Amino acid sequence: MIKTDILIIGAGPTGLFAVFEAGLLKLKCHLIDALPQAGGQCSEIYPKKPIYDIPGFPEVLAGDLVDNLMEQIKPFQPGFTLGERAETIKKLTDGSFVVTTNKGTEHHAPIVAIAGGLGSFEPRKPLLENLAKFEDNGVAYMIKDPEVYRDKKVVIAGGGDSALDWSIFLANVASEVTLVHRRNEFRGALDSVEKVQELKNQGKINLVTPGEIIGLNGINSLESVLIRKTTDAKEDITLAVDAFIPLFGLSPKLGPIGDWGLEIEKNAIKVDTFDYQTNIPGIYAIGDVNTYPGKLKLILCGFHEATLMCQSAFQKIFPDKKYVMKYTTVGGVSGFDGSKKEAPKAVVKAIE
Amino acid sequence: MIKTDILIIGAGPTGLFAVFEAGLLKLKCHLIDALPQAGGQCSEIYPKKPIYDIPGFPEVLAGDLVDNLMEQIKPFQPGFTLGERAETIKKLTDGSFVVTTNKGTEHHAPIVAIAGGLGSFEPRKPLLENLAKFEDNGVAYMIKDPEVYRDKKVVIAGGGDSALDWSIFLANVASEVTLVHRRNEFRGALDSVEKVQELKNQGKINLVTPGEIIGLNGINSLESVLIRKTTDAKEDITLAVDAFIPLFGLSPKLGPIGDWGLEIEKNAIKVDTFDYQTNIPGIYAIGDVNTYPGKLKLILCGFHEATLMCQSAFQKIFPDKKYVMKYTTVGGVSGFDGSKKEAPKAVVKAIE
Repeated sequence: MIKTDILIIGAGPTGLFAVFEAGLLKLKCHLIDALPQAGGQCSEIYPKKPIYDIPGFPEVLAGDLVDNLMEQIKPFQPGFTLGERAETIKKLTDGSFVVTTNKGTEHHAPIVAIAGGLGSFEPRKPLLENLAKFEDNGVAYMIKDPEVYRDKKVVIAGGGDSALDWSIFLANVASEVTLVHRRNEFRGALDSVEKVQELKNQGKINLVTPGEIIGLNGINSLESVLIRKTTDAKEDITLAVDAFIPLFGLSPKLGPIGDWGLEIEKNAIKVDTFDYQTNIPGIYAIGDVNTYPGKLKLILCGFHEATLMCQSAFQKIFPDKKYVMKYTTVGGVSGFDGSKKEAPKAVVKAIE
Repeated sequence: MIKTDILIIGAGPTGLFAVFEAGLLKLKCHLIDALPQAGGQCSEIYPKKPIYDIPGFPEVLAGDLVDNLMEQIKPFQPGFTLGERAETIKKLTDGSFVVTTNKGTEHHAPIVAIAGGLGSFEPRKPLLENLAKFEDNGVAYMIKDPEVYRDKKVVIAGGGDSALDWSIFLANVASEVTLVHRRNEFRGALDSVEKVQELKNQGKINLVTPGEIIGLNGINSLESVLIRKTTDAKEDITLAVDAFIPLFGLSPKLGPIGDWGLEIEKNAIKVDTFDYQTNIPGIYAIGDVNTYPGKLKLILCGFHEATLMCQSAFQKIFPDKKYVMKYTTVGGVSGFDGSKKEAPKAVVKAIE
């Protein structure tokens, strides 16, 4: 059982920044995220896109913002349970919570902060009758560790950035990469499209367009796929593969959190703006996942909400302690790892 | 009369960021600040101090944060009335406001946003009977334009960073710089203290410590000061000078805003967290100057408050327009200066 002070569900920018604010109050955090890495949408959906409305950054790539936040919270040594979705919550008699993921990992904390963004990202799946049989046995909708595909035969389906970028990446990892898309045209960053063109010319990526995967075969795990060249239906091809990775996009779903007894309004969790607490004491909701009068789904608002949430969490965990906020400019930042950052001290010195 | 959409009182980080959020909504801003430059405390009090709790910046110097914000808001061409304090407000019959400064500059806007921080910074003044006579006639408490002192004889009093830094700066501008401090020891950044020592050794700064200015003389403007060497009271010196600059620190005062009929609690303006509006419709208060249950005086909270304020201001100015928020990642930023920043567009392109 993983134990922490604040269990944060969702490792997007809001969840990450909460670690920093909690750390200033000497509270430890652990984060759960269904995605294989921290950063939420910023890492998974648009790492290379510039954001213009983060205060103090005239322009910052979403991926760089996440890197900066990871650097900022490093002194507070957050724990991570990645690639797992928070599934159930149980309130213990002492008021603390146990949250269990879809893989059975248990987390125990007095405070739970849901920073779930638009929800956990669920892949859009192709309509193939025996698809479920091969999930985790050759079929994957997200790539957690590309090394899994080293020297394997891989077929990727899709026509967007994910399909392009992973085809490029795996061209140097897998023994064979086939990219199947139901149109001739791909939609993505110009340099990704050009790079795939180049790898195709070099014979490092096999391209089937327009084409579609119409069948999966294998005894226990996936052994081959049936590809229909959609211009000529007579010409179905059986391709021996170890892995089929359909990358048709992710769509956010509030998911199991919707059944935790929280007050929901328009697919978001209602909170009080005093401390962003939900109707269940001890459970907070911060960032895009929450709603209140005047709510704007902006990263900068999540930062504010995370900060006020941490103050309230502190009061709940230490009802008798009086916390006096100290500005970081004055008090610096003392990491749990023993690190200390602070402004150079003024000297008191005579001039002779 | 200066006309704008949102008149912002206070050009600290919160006021500056409000210009950006207003700009996204195509609203123009003008800022008034009592200090001679934008940035509030960050520029005036601690430009070289690192801040650690701005989201996405593991460390940022206060002065750099201000520079970044100025860069971020540049496309929205804010106006500035600097070195003047907002003094009076008048509500016109159409519900709009006229704000007049202590120098008589008039500003007209349908919306006023007070981003006044801890208040306008008032200098601590030395106790000298005829001080008022020489204010703006040789005595200054802040340096707005150092060129005013070119080839002049200047005496600076004080023992902190401002006194040290301005003595260093003016050593190369004024014809004579005398630094008077009532103790031998200065309190400031080590390199500033060392630099003053060096300039004193070179004869570029005259140092009188311990010493005190005890008299001011002059017919119309300041002509000389009387300095008492406090170790030896018999040895008072008359020093011919053009300027006396006491730098004894600034202390924030809510000032005239306190008399505008706003609900005040503990020296801060009460607001509703729905949109950070005060008890007077059309007047908002954002950043450190406001208070509400759970309030934290942090820059990052001011950013959030500024953003929600702008949405509400937009609704007030255009009650019939329905604004649909567009993410900057999707819509980019269109400046009033014709500039356009946006994410590279995806291409739709066949691979052959």
